Amino acid sequence: MSERVGKYTLKMSHPVTIRSSVGVAGKKEGEGPLGEYFDITFKDNRLGQPSWEKAESTLQKTAVCELLRRNHLVNADIDVIFAGDLLNQCISSTFGLRELNIPFLGQYGACSTMAQTMLAASVFIDSGAADRAVAVTSSHFCSAERQFRLPIEYGGQRTPTAQWTVTGAGAALLDKSNGEVRVQYVTVGKINDLKIKDANNMGAAMAPAAADTLYHFFVDTNTKPTDYDLILTGDLGKVGSQLLKELLQRQEIDISGNHQDCGLMIFDLEGQDVHAGGSGCGCSGSVFCSYIMKQLKSGCLKNILFMATGALMSPTSSQQGESIPAIAHLLNIVRT
Amino acid sequence: MSERVGKYTLKMSHPVTIRSSVGVAGKKEGEGPLGEYFDITFKDNRLGQPSWEKAESTLQKTAVCELLRRNHLVNADIDVIFAGDLLNQCISSTFGLRELNIPFLGQYGACSTMAQTMLAASVFIDSGAADRAVAVTSSHFCSAERQFRLPIEYGGQRTPTAQWTVTGAGAALLDKSNGEVRVQYVTVGKINDLKIKDANNMGAAMAPAAADTLYHFFVDTNTKPTDYDLILTGDLGKVGSQLLKELLQRQEIDISGNHQDCGLMIFDLEGQDVHAGGSGCGCSGSVFCSYIMKQLKSGCLKNILFMATGALMSPTSSQQGESIPAIAHLLNIVRT
Repeated sequence: MSERVGKYTLKMSHPVTIRSSVGVAGKKEGEGPLGEYFDITFKDNRLGQPSWEKAESTLQKTAVCELLRRNHLVNADIDVIFAGDLLNQCISSTFGLRELNIPFLGQYGACSTMAQTMLAASVFIDSGAADRAVAVTSSHFCSAERQFRLPIEYGGQRTPTAQWTVTGAGAALLDKSNGEVRVQYVTVGKINDLKIKDANNMGAAMAPAAADTLYHFFVDTNTKPTDYDLILTGDLGKVGSQLLKELLQRQEIDISGNHQDCGLMIFDLEGQDVHAGGSGCGCSGSVFCSYIMKQLKSGCLKNILFMATGALMSPTSSQQGESIPAIAHLLNIVRT
Repeated sequence: MSERVGKYTLKMSHPVTIRSSVGVAGKKEGEGPLGEYFDITFKDNRLGQPSWEKAESTLQKTAVCELLRRNHLVNADIDVIFAGDLLNQCISSTFGLRELNIPFLGQYGACSTMAQTMLAASVFIDSGAADRAVAVTSSHFCSAERQFRLPIEYGGQRTPTAQWTVTGAGAALLDKSNGEVRVQYVTVGKINDLKIKDANNMGAAMAPAAADTLYHFFVDTNTKPTDYDLILTGDLGKVGSQLLKELLQRQEIDISGNHQDCGLMIFDLEGQDVHAGGSGCGCSGSVFCSYIMKQLKSGCLKNILFMATGALMSPTSSQQGESIPAIAHLLNIVRT
């Protein structure tokens, strides 16, 4: 029985444990600052598949299968899987997971998907609708580039505000046991659209949604940034992270002391030539499910906010002159 | 606190009421057998918009705004909205609903979306995570044709198994009051893929998923088809409906006495030249939210199964030689 706190936030009434997680990454991500923390790193970004889309499906399937293996579970032990990705009709998820025979609820939150799937899984577990749930997402640089921008063979010039879609996946196992790492509060985001139209500047489009969700969470819970060890955003990158801080400053909220962004952590921005940072569902997915979860399990982090943001446009909407609506979903995760 | 019944089914522990609903339809649908039941019918399928995609967004927004108006509610009265559609990156939902300022959880279940959004809303309400939720979906013939098949200007020949994507939307308001029409059980579907590859025969691809979910629901609840007034599928059409009956016959389950399909109800198959019937998220969305809900409210129907099916492929996956995975989510809805 989840309890509503304030206008937008839910408090879990029962223990909702993030039992385990697996972060999977591609070659470039493996060579980045978090390389040693990923559970599985692929040297070949094709993963032996005949297309980039099938490679991305394999990323997601690998993350889930490894998660089950490590926890000595079989597919039938999972009551429901929440999954989503960036590809049209979410085919990384549906094709990656189709053979698992697990009840499936497809989610679409663009790059906010890791937070959205964990949020939905948390409510299902807290309510008794599921005893054990998996939340999973993925992205792949090559499948994203050709769907959202240009075929990689074209060799297009990237703008300074552009971000690099992470090749990676994250899968988390949530259950109702009294585990160490628990979801305490969740906040469902609202769509924000401040009329940014530059599809090469996602950070700017997503920052207002992040500011909105974070603001409401602090109001609802009557807490402040310094109450948390870490305020972790998904893939705002360099531009969006700066804007988020500025937007919150206007509300007299200062997160500069403990804000980090998965998109800024996963790559060496200068050395790896990724411009404004990493992006994609797999960015926050792989970083949260590997590095952050390890920090929580070891007790180095004890009380964090994890908020992934998503840009809810499509190439069609951009071609029709539309701006970029965005959303941010938040979880407060504690180490007991 | 939802209670698990059997392996795949959830029983709502508190009253989860479908308080109200609005079904919106286009011109062709308005001229069909259910024309008089739709709450709003548009004579111009462009809805005054400059593109088909914007027209579809307007369908969805119209359904939600009319739902709020009829129930004397303002946007802030809704705790969460579950929405999804067929377009790439679900832009009908995100652009249609972006101005509403309501916490938003995007869902992707292809044509199963009306069942998926109502299922998720039911669990959130039963758990106390929401007091009032909206479930909404849409589809549009012209935006779907050009995205999934051919531009309509091309005038391509349609195969006999092809279905006609419904221009329409459905929005339902769910709350925790002691209302007349209630969700009693829900079953989350699993992905089924029997390797059908013909993207012009969605009914055949989706029938196995429908049979699987229905079979598990009967086992979990220890009930049989004749316990229900109506077993309503979403858009299996002529081919898929026949296959569903045959697949269930093999399990010695006979639904021939009380099965109907929204795709077969919404059009006059011969007179309106729609081949195997209607399809699209808006098919089951508009039929359930108008005709079926009116039958439930009036007491003509008292105990039904509503199960919408979705084909989880994309044009890219089909072009890469893939088969069509499918899913079906089910709700048992009763008139108290």
